[in-house]
Amino acid sequence: MYKSYIATPVIKRLPRYYRFLSELCAGGMTRISSKELAKRMGLTASQVRQDFNCFGGFGQQGYGYNIQQLKDTIGGILGLDQLQKMILIGAGNMGRAIGNEAFFNTCGFQLIGVFDKKPSLTGQIVNSIPVRHTDGLDEFCKENLPVAAALCIPNQEAKEVVRQLVGLGIKAIWNFTHYDPTADFPELIVENVHLRDSLMTFGYGIKNQ
Amino acid sequence: MYKSYIATPVIKRLPRYYRFLSELCAGGMTRISSKELAKRMGLTASQVRQDFNCFGGFGQQGYGYNIQQLKDTIGGILGLDQLQKMILIGAGNMGRAIGNEAFFNTCGFQLIGVFDKKPSLTGQIVNSIPVRHTDGLDEFCKENLPVAAALCIPNQEAKEVVRQLVGLGIKAIWNFTHYDPTADFPELIVENVHLRDSLMTFGYGIKNQ
Repeated sequence: MYKSYIATPVIKRLPRYYRFLSELCAGGMTRISSKELAKRMGLTASQVRQDFNCFGGFGQQGYGYNIQQLKDTIGGILGLDQLQKMILIGAGNMGRAIGNEAFFNTCGFQLIGVFDKKPSLTGQIVNSIPVRHTDGLDEFCKENLPVAAALCIPNQEAKEVVRQLVGLGIKAIWNFTHYDPTADFPELIVENVHLRDSLMTFGYGIKNQ
Repeated sequence: MYKSYIATPVIKRLPRYYRFLSELCAGGMTRISSKELAKRMGLTASQVRQDFNCFGGFGQQGYGYNIQQLKDTIGGILGLDQLQKMILIGAGNMGRAIGNEAFFNTCGFQLIGVFDKKPSLTGQIVNSIPVRHTDGLDEFCKENLPVAAALCIPNQEAKEVVRQLVGLGIKAIWNFTHYDPTADFPELIVENVHLRDSLMTFGYGIKNQ
């Protein structure tokens, strides 16, 4: 149905397409032209057509895309239909904020455990899940086999925790720390959320508009 | 000293260079070769040299870069020495987590106010700042002239709030919602932090490693 290899920049745009198409679906729209979709997303129509051609042509000349079909296809490519088990390490301010966001299930993940090394946080509730002490991490992972971990801990603790997680079979890190896991563990799949970098880029944009 | 125009991909890498150089400085290092810096950052040496050439050559053949000097120059380009006034809209889980991060001052911003429309949050403390009710937003902005706002509110409220902020002189939005402000306010400077998109890209990476 679609090419097995899709270039990274296209992949990076897929969630945004998915988001826009979901909103259009929710608004009751059934079809949209590449021109209209491009306009709403701040892209060019030829860019949109080119992207969608990567996984099979959906549009018919003068007829546009079937929004539901396109959304489902993109959701399938992103693998949103098969939830992957994720644990959250760190239940401080950021960990609780991330953990409480209601986006795991709609983004292809199932949050199955929350851990923090602070005993005072044990038993607190994050997204209906009681926080466990990190002492229980080994046993939990052996029993529940999570594939991914969200990392919301201090930078200086990150390396040791990642080492432990890799030893426990974790294949992928959603990384909110400044530590770069790929330097020490090149086999890991890492998605970084560097808020400081985002803030600095933002500041540069303001000063050099 | 450096070109007034620097290409966007280079700008996007500057915070990461700054972060690495800061760590090297803190570790007591004074000089580093492009090769060694590239290795630590997962780039190529020629990429590093090319990037730094955009704002004047710093390295001497066989001698490497002066880390402190390079860090200060990049900090200057990013404008980290002149703090810009920012307000935070939304003191829910994510707003509190963002607001409590100790990164504003080191990233070129001064957080001067926190607002939420929920009366129950008024007076709560975020980063030593008492949360104000959004009723007081107009007066506060007229008095304190913030240039930027971090947006941590529900998606469906975002458009109206951005409209209000633009009317109050806000020039830039650090956007944690799914609403795309540039569609309605093309003159705004917007830096998006789309956690759902990040999570979906992450999931794709796991399934297609």
